[in-house]
Amino acid sequence: MAVNLTAPQAQALFPVAGVRLGTAQAGIRKANRKDLLLIALDEGTRVAGVFTRNRFCAAPVLVARAHLEAGEEIRALVVNTGNANAGTGEGGLRAARATCDETARLLGSRPGQVLPFSTGVIMEPLPVERIATGLPACIADLQAANWLSAAEAIMTTDTVPKAASRRIRVGGSPVTVTGIAKGAGMIHPDMATMLCFVATDAAIGAAPLRAALAHAADHSFNSITVDGDTSTNDAFMLIATGRAGNREIASETDAQFTALRDAITDVASELAQTIIRDGEGATKFITVRVERGAGRAECRKVAFAIAHSPLVKTAFFASDPNLGRILAAIGYAGIDDLDVSRLELYLDDVRVASGGGRDPAYREEDGQRVMRRSEITVRVVLNRGTASATVWTCDLSHDYVTINAEYRT
Amino acid sequence: MAVNLTAPQAQALFPVAGVRLGTAQAGIRKANRKDLLLIALDEGTRVAGVFTRNRFCAAPVLVARAHLEAGEEIRALVVNTGNANAGTGEGGLRAARATCDETARLLGSRPGQVLPFSTGVIMEPLPVERIATGLPACIADLQAANWLSAAEAIMTTDTVPKAASRRIRVGGSPVTVTGIAKGAGMIHPDMATMLCFVATDAAIGAAPLRAALAHAADHSFNSITVDGDTSTNDAFMLIATGRAGNREIASETDAQFTALRDAITDVASELAQTIIRDGEGATKFITVRVERGAGRAECRKVAFAIAHSPLVKTAFFASDPNLGRILAAIGYAGIDDLDVSRLELYLDDVRVASGGGRDPAYREEDGQRVMRRSEITVRVVLNRGTASATVWTCDLSHDYVTINAEYRT
Repeated sequence: MAVNLTAPQAQALFPVAGVRLGTAQAGIRKANRKDLLLIALDEGTRVAGVFTRNRFCAAPVLVARAHLEAGEEIRALVVNTGNANAGTGEGGLRAARATCDETARLLGSRPGQVLPFSTGVIMEPLPVERIATGLPACIADLQAANWLSAAEAIMTTDTVPKAASRRIRVGGSPVTVTGIAKGAGMIHPDMATMLCFVATDAAIGAAPLRAALAHAADHSFNSITVDGDTSTNDAFMLIATGRAGNREIASETDAQFTALRDAITDVASELAQTIIRDGEGATKFITVRVERGAGRAECRKVAFAIAHSPLVKTAFFASDPNLGRILAAIGYAGIDDLDVSRLELYLDDVRVASGGGRDPAYREEDGQRVMRRSEITVRVVLNRGTASATVWTCDLSHDYVTINAEYRT
Repeated sequence: MAVNLTAPQAQALFPVAGVRLGTAQAGIRKANRKDLLLIALDEGTRVAGVFTRNRFCAAPVLVARAHLEAGEEIRALVVNTGNANAGTGEGGLRAARATCDETARLLGSRPGQVLPFSTGVIMEPLPVERIATGLPACIADLQAANWLSAAEAIMTTDTVPKAASRRIRVGGSPVTVTGIAKGAGMIHPDMATMLCFVATDAAIGAAPLRAALAHAADHSFNSITVDGDTSTNDAFMLIATGRAGNREIASETDAQFTALRDAITDVASELAQTIIRDGEGATKFITVRVERGAGRAECRKVAFAIAHSPLVKTAFFASDPNLGRILAAIGYAGIDDLDVSRLELYLDDVRVASGGGRDPAYREEDGQRVMRRSEITVRVVLNRGTASATVWTCDLSHDYVTINAEYRT
């Protein structure tokens, strides 16, 4: 059901010096599928991360955040699918810590140098002994060229593996940015992807690395929504190995910072959009762009009101230009002083509404023509300022219900 | 698909002295169906109303609100289905005013004494001439006993007419409260029903009438959700004819106020729950009760996070006790200092979660047993205060998608 989405080619995913990846079939939930990923990092690597804001965040999120904050140099990330280790209380924390312990033991590092990640069913005990049994196979498999295999290992309801890669020059040095992500439901702002790992070989300080991560997250995973549900496990990790040979980027004002930040954002944005194209049951890829607002926050409010509306989403599924539903969503987005008579609504190139109602030149067949497309841009012009925001979403189909009604069976 | 819902019996809907109702087939959108309702009020009647907070509110909402605020005695309410007269700009306002003009002309009153209401498709011009043509038939049909017929006339995607009635004693006098409502989608707090009209023959002052309305709305229509979409047209009108013979209730501190307010709330609550039972595609009726919160507002936040979650709603549809989804929704409800280790989650009588995870005594088959029921109570005990809130919702089924994908066809 994915919308204009094909699996990435392994050779298009450039290795990142200092990063090796290995996978295994650990049988965590189902037999005969890759469900365990180990990312091993060379010495001298910096890692920054953003995590779900869900108060019921999963045990691995608590442990990974604590390990990052403690400031030890991170040497490994361990990711399992099949079980989210969320809503699992103290036992879940013990399981997440045991995963770090065992990984550290095998790699000869300390537990605080390992970050654990889990995704899958909530509120079931994590079979940590299966992870321990699978880890040696991951280690034996470690290779710099394993990005596609790694993307496959973290899939759950995803229909295709998700990976993206760029090569740029930073201050004369060739720099690589490569990332993988997984997620097809429970996608929401402030924690959009379920899991995303992006690595670069650029040399960059800890503060600008965090700034680049925040910018990339804001313009990628925090700008997508499938169903408005915020996961307990979402995490976006940015890794910088410093092996590219560029002079280290020391701050956000460094001339080289913007080029690297934009390449990272580009990879993250491609991965985020890939998640929407693979949204559970998605048949259409919808870009919602809100322009000329008084601020970015209100533009995002309007964009997400549209992108979250089940009525709007089912209308897209049906290719039905029932566009009053979009006006209704704009109306309840929460801008108290919105003057609806001033705004304009466009569907791709077609102006649908103006002057508080249907545009005089709008014809139903024009709306119908656009609605039949598999990729559609909804553009709202608020005409009350200079800010804008873009959000990506998909339609709501029968298959969304089917997938989520049968997920555990 | 309605959940444990049958059409009301005409004889169970007690007439309200001073209120007469008449319907007609005006052919507003489709031929051969009742789509126009006139409610005529005797002299001396008071009317209070609450309306949608959607900024894109419909033309009739703007006109009805203006007429109420102007303070003229209201003598008639006109309701059409088939067309919402929303997103229709200046032309829509003219159409709503023309409806009032024509009704006033026929009844010998002033246009400011008429309140217009519309429901149906958004952003299409209201065929006001068909309303004008239909009004004489409504007038010819005016009767005090027409409540069921009136409920039928305002249906859109509703599968059964919605009406409720109570008789109580207020200060020794028999008092009647009877109401009708319509709505099955676009149901959301702060204007849940699309349309609801409740009338009583009690004598009550303007201020306590408004207070009773606010209380009833808060505990009924503002406590239900089908899909989180807030309509452009929602309105809840409370009519008091003063014909019951009770001494007029002058203020909220009047000893008789509470009895009347509770009867009105009772009727409104029954109508609101009926809307959920008839929720688009609903197969289950879900009560979400949040207890022992620090305040009612945070209890409502948690209850609506659960009630809005598409993942939770599809799990109910599938009778799948995938209850981690409920924990996730509690976690993202927006209580920043929530201690998840203290809360308890119950499904009917079964304790599912405690101590931040699955309850030690919980067994999957107990959850499964409850999930198969058609009426289920989700109870969250926050253990951080004394406040509580209750919200009603339904599951998200294939039929929700089908109904909303095909609404206009």
